[in-house]
Amino acid sequence: MKIEGRNAVYELLKTDKEIDKILVQKDLKDDASKRLINVIRSHKVKLQPVDKYVIEKESESKRHQGFIAYVSDYKYFEIEDIIDDCADKDGLVVVLNEILDPHNLGSIIRVCECAGADGIIIGKDRSASVSDTVMRISAGALNHIKVAKVTNINNAIDKLKENGFWVYGAEVGGGNIYKSNLTGKICLVIGGEDSGVKRLTKEKCDGIISIPMFGKVNSLNASVACGIAVYEVVRQRVQTEKA
Amino acid sequence: MKIEGRNAVYELLKTDKEIDKILVQKDLKDDASKRLINVIRSHKVKLQPVDKYVIEKESESKRHQGFIAYVSDYKYFEIEDIIDDCADKDGLVVVLNEILDPHNLGSIIRVCECAGADGIIIGKDRSASVSDTVMRISAGALNHIKVAKVTNINNAIDKLKENGFWVYGAEVGGGNIYKSNLTGKICLVIGGEDSGVKRLTKEKCDGIISIPMFGKVNSLNASVACGIAVYEVVRQRVQTEKA
Repeated sequence: MKIEGRNAVYELLKTDKEIDKILVQKDLKDDASKRLINVIRSHKVKLQPVDKYVIEKESESKRHQGFIAYVSDYKYFEIEDIIDDCADKDGLVVVLNEILDPHNLGSIIRVCECAGADGIIIGKDRSASVSDTVMRISAGALNHIKVAKVTNINNAIDKLKENGFWVYGAEVGGGNIYKSNLTGKICLVIGGEDSGVKRLTKEKCDGIISIPMFGKVNSLNASVACGIAVYEVVRQRVQTEKA
Repeated sequence: MKIEGRNAVYELLKTDKEIDKILVQKDLKDDASKRLINVIRSHKVKLQPVDKYVIEKESESKRHQGFIAYVSDYKYFEIEDIIDDCADKDGLVVVLNEILDPHNLGSIIRVCECAGADGIIIGKDRSASVSDTVMRISAGALNHIKVAKVTNINNAIDKLKENGFWVYGAEVGGGNIYKSNLTGKICLVIGGEDSGVKRLTKEKCDGIISIPMFGKVNSLNASVACGIAVYEVVRQRVQTEKA
């Protein structure tokens, strides 16, 4: 959804709505525009200066005054929605611990949907949120899997445990994932690009599992690591079901 | 060629590549940067402190983190180099069939190196080539795995078969990868973003293997699919070796 015009953008910033980015016309010199640009910067929203013709082309109202904000209209699910879906089956839930890159988030959503996971849980702070980029990278998978946004992922993990989930953090230094039993209701915790699974979150886990590394770089991209881990859960199910 | 970013420069230093010089932004104060500067000094590489605007100007990726290394251009390996490495062991070679996106190529190189693969073969035409972007996305893995560029990947597959490799194409509509025996010398063929594994190449394969899909999107990103497939080979080795 597009929000156009100085006042509308200013009011938008007061809400807790997800703003993907704000386009700003490059050569605005008036004080009101400069003030708004400073406010946008202070909100740490992605600001993209563009030429006037780009704004003109993007504008639907033609009353943009040099500002167009893109707001995500994705409606997050509640963690209970995901837990309820798993009431009568061995669910698979993925918790993301500070995944910051929208490309990684989109790619994770895509592979989780393919693997038949029941939901993805992301934190409110220090996390990429669902945006147009995430939707695009997910190749539409976002429409078919539940994403919940929670204030505190550690509390979410507690809730999953209360509902019969075994929680495994995917992180270096843990047990070999291929020697771990990942059957039953499973929650996988995937760490962020920079810091991996955080200490407090790690302590909440029933176990830490690691993808074995045989090279010199010894670090996988978060979405590739997530893909390998969720598909190991899938494999163990496929092989035990139809052994 | 320019290598940009802390991690990429750090991995570069582990190799025996010729480094002409490394530009470092003058006012870096964080610990990670200071650590890297010490590592660079210990390698006796020419270190050139420059102002931020110089780094910005030189940077191609705009993700330099204050470090740009200049190295001679990538030298592709010959397919024979890779085959020779596998003379006395169960090798793992990945053939890419028209991977066009440098991000996918870099990501594939990264996961293949982590999985301990012996080499990657790309085609001369209709394929992303090794570039600065590929190097950056590979997180330095490109320095530790052999990449060969061939005129015709079907001939390359023939050569691998002559040398005892079993060739499997990863593609929809094949046998379940988790029910396939992937031990021995293995070559995995990964299809491109658009067209998957081409018909002629498919016909060269000893078998087609598929990652089972449980969602509605039913298509994985090429690098994620590659990661899942190479790690299934790894898993079968880990589990048979130490059963």
